[in-house]
Amino acid sequence: MKKMIIASTSTLHGGGYLDYLLPTLTEFFKGRRSLLFVPYARPGGISHDEYTQRVRDAFAPLGISVTGLHEYEDAAAAIAKAEAIFTGGGNTFLLVTQLYKNNVMNALADAVKTGTPYLGSSAGSNVTGLTMQTTNDMPIIYPPSFQTLGLIPFNLNPHYLDPDLQSKHMGETRETRIKEFHQFNTIPVLGLREGSWLEVSGDKITLKGDLQARLFRQGKDPEELAAGSDLSGLR
Amino acid sequence: MKKMIIASTSTLHGGGYLDYLLPTLTEFFKGRRSLLFVPYARPGGISHDEYTQRVRDAFAPLGISVTGLHEYEDAAAAIAKAEAIFTGGGNTFLLVTQLYKNNVMNALADAVKTGTPYLGSSAGSNVTGLTMQTTNDMPIIYPPSFQTLGLIPFNLNPHYLDPDLQSKHMGETRETRIKEFHQFNTIPVLGLREGSWLEVSGDKITLKGDLQARLFRQGKDPEELAAGSDLSGLR
Repeated sequence: MKKMIIASTSTLHGGGYLDYLLPTLTEFFKGRRSLLFVPYARPGGISHDEYTQRVRDAFAPLGISVTGLHEYEDAAAAIAKAEAIFTGGGNTFLLVTQLYKNNVMNALADAVKTGTPYLGSSAGSNVTGLTMQTTNDMPIIYPPSFQTLGLIPFNLNPHYLDPDLQSKHMGETRETRIKEFHQFNTIPVLGLREGSWLEVSGDKITLKGDLQARLFRQGKDPEELAAGSDLSGLR
Repeated sequence: MKKMIIASTSTLHGGGYLDYLLPTLTEFFKGRRSLLFVPYARPGGISHDEYTQRVRDAFAPLGISVTGLHEYEDAAAAIAKAEAIFTGGGNTFLLVTQLYKNNVMNALADAVKTGTPYLGSSAGSNVTGLTMQTTNDMPIIYPPSFQTLGLIPFNLNPHYLDPDLQSKHMGETRETRIKEFHQFNTIPVLGLREGSWLEVSGDKITLKGDLQARLFRQGKDPEELAAGSDLSGLR
């Protein structure tokens, strides 16, 4: 049975890494002693080791030891054996490229489908959707495909940002970009604001945190969903 | 001899389409009676016809007639015969996909290299660089390659945005994204603020408009370049 926490962001303004999620994660990872971290997305270009250390420090208070996927010869085997998995944020193009290059996209999907608890934040959340095509990231590397894990039946836009009505900037708003996506794609897109996350338990998907999320569907007006909404039927 | 105007944006806040550039364009297109418009980037998902009409209206006061590249059977031949070319903004992934699909990437580069005056704005400027990898756009479609026209020896980030120091949003700043690009790529990136453009005349590249531009190079601190700077040596 799938068990996932899919978070918009790892960090809230003024808080520490994963701070706001710690009560949730304590419950979610109860009984797990080790966690496998996927550091591929490398936020700001930090190294796999540095990134893994950051996560190790965050999970120490929970009594969970952390290893980085880059430390293993056989990455697919490490995923299959993992007690729990966390894919961190950074650049989604880089993350997806590395997941394909290291041949672990399927291993990761299989592990989650067979019940390994999965935590994603930002780019690590993006890849749980059908495709990475609603990422906010810069295409710094050319991935072999935009298809991702397909563990939820829609796409995400993490760090969702409402239009700034005071802005004089003429670049596209997030909403305009998602509308462009729907010119060519039928997949629903959930804009997850910072502080929101999805909790997946089997086929049940619930919007958690205090905020509304914004749902975009092809040919329909965007819709605000209340915290606690059941998204299980969304596809 | 190359003749190009490469603009950060088509439109400034509070102004009309191409307004702020009209004096420059009047001089730049002097003696040209017709212009071929490349509408492929489809901002906000508008149709090729609607987009071409917008450009037709903007060029009417200059006595220049406008046709859309989508109106021609043989797009490459239309480009080769064009008196002048304008590639408009929108989604860069879509633009690049269409340029490859319609087999006109080379025709476009050849036309500009042999002296056809070229105007680009936003996505239409992005593609004049070596790759489209420093676009701000969403990957709504999977292009066959990120390589672009290579008419200037570096990359652009149009609509360049300085970090908002008041922001509580935790998504990456533009500068952070470009820094991530430089973890994997050596190509210099010029952040062109809205209101800036490059004027290319043969091998000479000049920063025009009233604003500074921000230059990013691998392993170096970003640098502010004054309006009027000569960028011919940048590579």
